Parts: sequence; structure tokens; C-alpha cells
Amino acid sequence: METIIKSEKATQWKKTEGNICSPSGFAAAGIQAGFKKSGKDLALILSRTLSSTASVYTQNAVKGAPLVITKEHSSNGLAQAIVCNSGNANTCNANGLEIAREACAIVGESLGILEENILVASTGVIGKPLSIDPFKNGIKELVESLNETSGDFAAEAILTTDTDIKQTAIQFELSETTATIGGISKGSGMIHPNMATMLGFITTDVAIAPDVLQQALKEVVMDTFNMISVDGDTSTNDMVTVLANGEAGNNEIQSDQDPDYKPFKEVLHEVCKELAIAIAEDGEGASTLITCNVLNATNEYKAKAIAKQVISSNLVKAAVYGRDANVGRLLCAIGYSGVDVDYRNIDIYMRSEDYRSVCVCEAGSIVSFDEDKAYDILGTDKLFIDIYLYEGQEQATAWGCDLTTEYVTINSAYRT
Amino acid sequence: METIIKSEKATQWKKTEGNICSPSGFAAAGIQAGFKKSGKDLALILSRTLSSTASVYTQNAVKGAPLVITKEHSSNGLAQAIVCNSGNANTCNANGLEIAREACAIVGESLGILEENILVASTGVIGKPLSIDPFKNGIKELVESLNETSGDFAAEAILTTDTDIKQTAIQFELSETTATIGGISKGSGMIHPNMATMLGFITTDVAIAPDVLQQALKEVVMDTFNMISVDGDTSTNDMVTVLANGEAGNNEIQSDQDPDYKPFKEVLHEVCKELAIAIAEDGEGASTLITCNVLNATNEYKAKAIAKQVISSNLVKAAVYGRDANVGRLLCAIGYSGVDVDYRNIDIYMRSEDYRSVCVCEAGSIVSFDEDKAYDILGTDKLFIDIYLYEGQEQATAWGCDLTTEYVTINSAYRT
Repeated sequence: METIIKSEKATQWKKTEGNICSPSGFAAAGIQAGFKKSGKDLALILSRTLSSTASVYTQNAVKGAPLVITKEHSSNGLAQAIVCNSGNANTCNANGLEIAREACAIVGESLGILEENILVASTGVIGKPLSIDPFKNGIKELVESLNETSGDFAAEAILTTDTDIKQTAIQFELSETTATIGGISKGSGMIHPNMATMLGFITTDVAIAPDVLQQALKEVVMDTFNMISVDGDTSTNDMVTVLANGEAGNNEIQSDQDPDYKPFKEVLHEVCKELAIAIAEDGEGASTLITCNVLNATNEYKAKAIAKQVISSNLVKAAVYGRDANVGRLLCAIGYSGVDVDYRNIDIYMRSEDYRSVCVCEAGSIVSFDEDKAYDILGTDKLFIDIYLYEGQEQATAWGCDLTTEYVTINSAYRT
Repeated sequence: METIIKSEKATQWKKTEGNICSPSGFAAAGIQAGFKKSGKDLALILSRTLSSTASVYTQNAVKGAPLVITKEHSSNGLAQAIVCNSGNANTCNANGLEIAREACAIVGESLGILEENILVASTGVIGKPLSIDPFKNGIKELVESLNETSGDFAAEAILTTDTDIKQTAIQFELSETTATIGGISKGSGMIHPNMATMLGFITTDVAIAPDVLQQALKEVVMDTFNMISVDGDTSTNDMVTVLANGEAGNNEIQSDQDPDYKPFKEVLHEVCKELAIAIAEDGEGASTLITCNVLNATNEYKAKAIAKQVISSNLVKAAVYGRDANVGRLLCAIGYSGVDVDYRNIDIYMRSEDYRSVCVCEAGSIVSFDEDKAYDILGTDKLFIDIYLYEGQEQATAWGCDLTTEYVTINSAYRT
């Protein structure tokens, strides 16, 4: 167990090797139920008690049926379990809502809890009719295999084209007790059988009122899950959901003025950031994680817009793949980020994780730099692009990945 | 010479095999001056007389130095010549403005006209210092080779990674005379040595006041050059410029109420559309031209937003490359186009140029369709995607191309 003490913040936390089962009172399961041709494809996360819940959903106007049902079932701010299948998004199907509702009913019945307290998510092919059969056939095994050591299996069962599971857990101190937040996520790349969807499921034993949980999640997602891009396409089924069951025993956090709110939100931020970065790093066909920091902006909105445009530019992403310190493309992306910026002030540095660094642009003019050093820096797994605007004090970070021939190969593969 | 009569419009026109020299009183030249390692790289377009001029420029906040000088030189609505080099964008260079200004001075001096009446454009690598020498060394040959049969050479000299020249000309009737509009363009794909820039240069012998010309060009560009996308990246140097020298002898068009305004604008629209489509079709690595029509929208803005999002989606573009009628990705792109749309009304058809057609989505639900037929349709050079919103009477069209492994290979190639 590694102890990370963030010097700039009050909160002390321990990053564990844990997952969604690390907070008290959570069990999970992940099994193969037949949604996909092979591999685990049905996950269940269960809290021992009815929990506060909060979710954020895709901004795509076309929303998957499961999101509609989850929104309905969490309208009172309470839920106890999350069921998620991979392999079929249950979106743009004529009977999608029925199926999503029935899935909750099946799980609720088997667990002996109200179907209204079950949340549902799906990821996979859009527009392929989803049969209720794999839910029906798999439910017995799914519920029987629920336990506190199966977090890994749930993390695996929600994957589609991801190359690895994505999970984390952090233990931290509240004013009078210790609490934990855990989480799993899956990536947004799309592939044969062409799907979709960024999912994040977070569990915590903190006691917190639903509306305060919603506020914290919404703010945190803006800086984490919303600051990554794999291919610029926003899925119909993206969602991030938290269950907070209160088993840590703290006095319930009832407002953002509560002294426990700040440490809770900080750790929630860290968990979401880790899960989000893991998605960017595992983008389809990706070979390099690109972190773009925009510094000294007049406001955060501007810094975010620029950072996100840079990591979303096909040309920047292809240049990184080619280990080309192509400053023209960076300036070009900054220029069309839609915010007002005087590029004649801008300095840009490219940097590797081991702090080798090269200045490639000064005061908006491209300078001559050591091309060999730049080539080396661009060849590392983790590239940092630091953009200094010299206009103010705000900053933002976005994460993306390079655009590779492998990405196109994957995404041009036939559906069926 | 082919005669095209557009039945739905009043204007009758003849599409010719012509180019920018087809309108009366224009000469052109294209030579090799040493901006690139090989091939023609310096173009000149000259009108016999001082002409009305209008331009639209990139919306990128980072603007190339040539655009600044062109804007300055055309501020009185008059110009006589356009000089354009390829191989270097003259952007983000410390002395870029100086160089652009000096290029105009050299050309003006050699032609015996004021440098204020010369417009300048550049396309090529961003941020590489541009020497004035190729202008100085090439000017004599450039001016000596000016003639009315060298339109092709100018069309060639502005190219970077384009695989072919792009030009057209249309002759049409005004109320009392015959007039012609010609044009050349180059593509927006970016490549080794990491290119940029969509350029369009249009010549006409119509007599038209500068402000009315500006109005017509601005409106036409919105529906043509602004409705294509190769890779979603907006260059620093994009510009479209018209010279109108009045040699057709019509009474000068002085307002949009002039009876000659409508036919002029229609033909300008057709010329710009052809030049724009040629760019989309010749996108880097592209194998299929994608035309997306959005029909029955409540307003044009909405139709445009959806059409443009569809042809800009990496996932849609990669699916087309894979000949995959991936309706989920289409609905997904429609959903994040940023406009309010009820996808439950939407029908979608995929269609080839020879009118084979397959319905892939009805009332927002993906229907089963003949996959073999869809595969055949997607294998043609020109794919049409028709999206019916069933909300109103407006429509829009956008043009793009597929995303291929070749695109990534090209754009990950090292700069130098």
C-alpha cells in the first residue's frame, strides 16, 4: 500500500490496491451471461444498504434507454445496486425502455429489493435488439457470485474494446472517521462490434445527502471525465454513477459548507481523475497518453477550451504518433478553440514524464529547437504539452491519446 | 463544351472546360520558384484592370501573415492581382508581415502597379521562416509567363498535398450580356511537410460593387466552402478571394435588388460548390466522397449543424472506409451536433450516385436492411447519406470524406 500525501492540499489519503469493494458494505460480481460472444459481460454492484446516489449522463441528444431508466430510478436520490451489461448498448431499439426496466425487475426480484432501487447501464452496439434472455439466464449465477472480493470481475465485465480493467480506491480521513472511495471505468473508444460509451461506477462508504453528492460529482466530472477525449465522439450511453452508503459512520455531509465536504470532494476528484486518465491512456490503438496543460489563462473556461481542443485535434494526435513536434498544428488548434487568445504571447513546451523538456514556441513564434531531443520526448508513453498564455492565473488540464493507423483499422472493421 | 440547364432555377449557364482565365481580361502564371523542393510553387493571377475584390478568411484566431496584408490591401474594395506561394504558410514567423508586404512590393513593381493593389496568400508549413529570395528570384519568370492560357499552371502552383488541380468555369447570361466566373482551389488536408490551408481564388468579368460582391461571397461561402471538412482542423491560412473586373460590360450590380444579382450569385454558388466538393473528394488519403443531406428541418441552421457533424465524425468516416453502414454512429453524431432534435422521428437512407438506396433507420430505430446491398453502396466513390428530420421544410448539405489508414500515415510523417 502506497501512501500519497498531497502537499498542496489538506487531505491526507492512502491510495490502495483496491476497487469498488474497498468501501465498507459493497459487494460486486462479474460473469459471462452471453451478451458478447465471449468473456464476462454482466456486472453487478450492490450496497448492503440503501444509498445516496448521484449520476451525470451523456450530453448527446440521443440517449440510451438504460440512462432513461436510471434517471427515473434515482429521481429520489436513492439506490442500492447497479447492473451493467456489455456487448449491446440497448439504444435506438424500439423496445429499449421495456428491456432496461425488465432487467432492473429481474435483478430486484433476485436480490429482494425494489426494482426502483436498481440502476442500469449498457455498453456495446447501438441499434441491435437486446434480448432479455441473458439477464434471465445469468441472474442466478450473478447474484450467487456477489462478494467483496469480486470487484475485479465487475471491472472486467463492463469492458468492451478496452485492453485492461480500470479501477482504483483511496482511503482518507474525515473529521472523525476514516472513509474510502472506490471506482471502475471503461473506455470511450469504439470498435468492432463498434461500441461506445464511457462508464464510471463509484462506490463510497461516506454518509452524504443526495443533493450534495450530486453537486460534488457534477463539479468533479467537469474537470476529469469531461476533460478527456479519445476520438471526439460523444456516446449515447456515457454515464458516471456514485453510490454512497454511509457505512463509514461520519455525520452525514449535508452541505458544501460541512468540513468533511472538501476532503470528500478532493478524493472523489482524484478517483475520477485516475479513472478518466486510464480511459485516455487506453484509447483505441493509442500508443501515447497526451496531457495538455494550459497555464496562466484569464479564466478556467478558456484554459479548458484550449486544452481540450489540442488533445482533440486529429492533426496534433497524428503528429504525436509520428513523434513530430509539430508546433504549427498546436498553434492551429489553439487558434480554433473558440476562445479569444492572443497567440503572440504564447510559449509552448513539450515534456516527458522524466522532466526532459524542450521549448518549441516563444511569444507565438516557432523557435528552432533540438529536434533529436524532441523526437525522444515524443517517443515516450506519456507526453506533456504545456501551453503558457501569460494572461492570468487560471489553468486547466486535458488528457487524450495519439491517432494511430491502428485506430482506423479497428474502427473501420465491419460490425457483424 | 457541356451545357447544363438547371431546371429549378432561372439562370441558364454553360459549364466550360475553363478556369480562372476564362472570364475576359484575366491572365495567370504558375512557376517553380524554390519554395518547395520540387514542382510549381508560385502563382500569379492578374486582371487587366483594377477590380472589385472581396475575401473571406479563416475563423482561426491564429491568422497567417498573408491574410493580414491581404485584408489591409483590399480594405478599399479594389485589387488587381493575387500572388500565392505554396510550401510555406508564412505563419507564426517573427518577420511574417514584413515578408508578405515585401512579396506584394516585388510583384507590384514588376507589374507596374501599386503594391496596395496586390493580394497575397501562402500555404505550407506553419512556423518555418520564409525567405524573400524565391519571390525575388522568381518574379521575372513569373511575370514573363503571364498569359491567358496558363490558368492550369496557376491551379497547379497553389497545390500542396492535393493529388490533382481543382478548377472550373461557368458562362452565364446577365440581363444584357454574357459573363463568366472561373475559379481554382486547393485542399485542406495536412501532410508532410505538414500542410495546411484551403484556398479559393475566383475571377469574374462581371461588373459589381465591392460591398455587393462581399455580401454574395460571404453568403455563398457559408453554404459551400464552410460546409466541407477533411479532418475538422481549421487552418490559419484559409481564404477565398474574388476579383471582378467588369469587362463583361454589364451595368454594375450595385445592390442585391439588381436583377443581375441573383444569376450572378447562383453561378458564384455553383463555382464555389464545385471547388469545395473537389477539396472534400481529394481529402488526404480519402477513397470516398461523403455527401450528407439533412432534410425537413425546422431551420437551415439545424440542418447545417447536423450535416456538418455527420461528415466530421471520425467514427462515421472510419465506418465508411470499412464499408460499414453503421447507423449507430450516424445517430450518435446527430445526437451531439449541439442542436435540439427528436431522434425518434428520424429516417436515414444511404444512397449511391446511381440511385441505389437502402433505408437504415426508421423513426429513430435501426431497422434490418440488406447488408450486402449496403456494402455495395458504401463501396462506391460517392456516398450519399440522407437524413430526414420530419420537422419542417429546410435543408442543408455537407461534404466530407472517409478516414483511412493512409490519412494517419500521411499525417504522422515527420515534418523535415
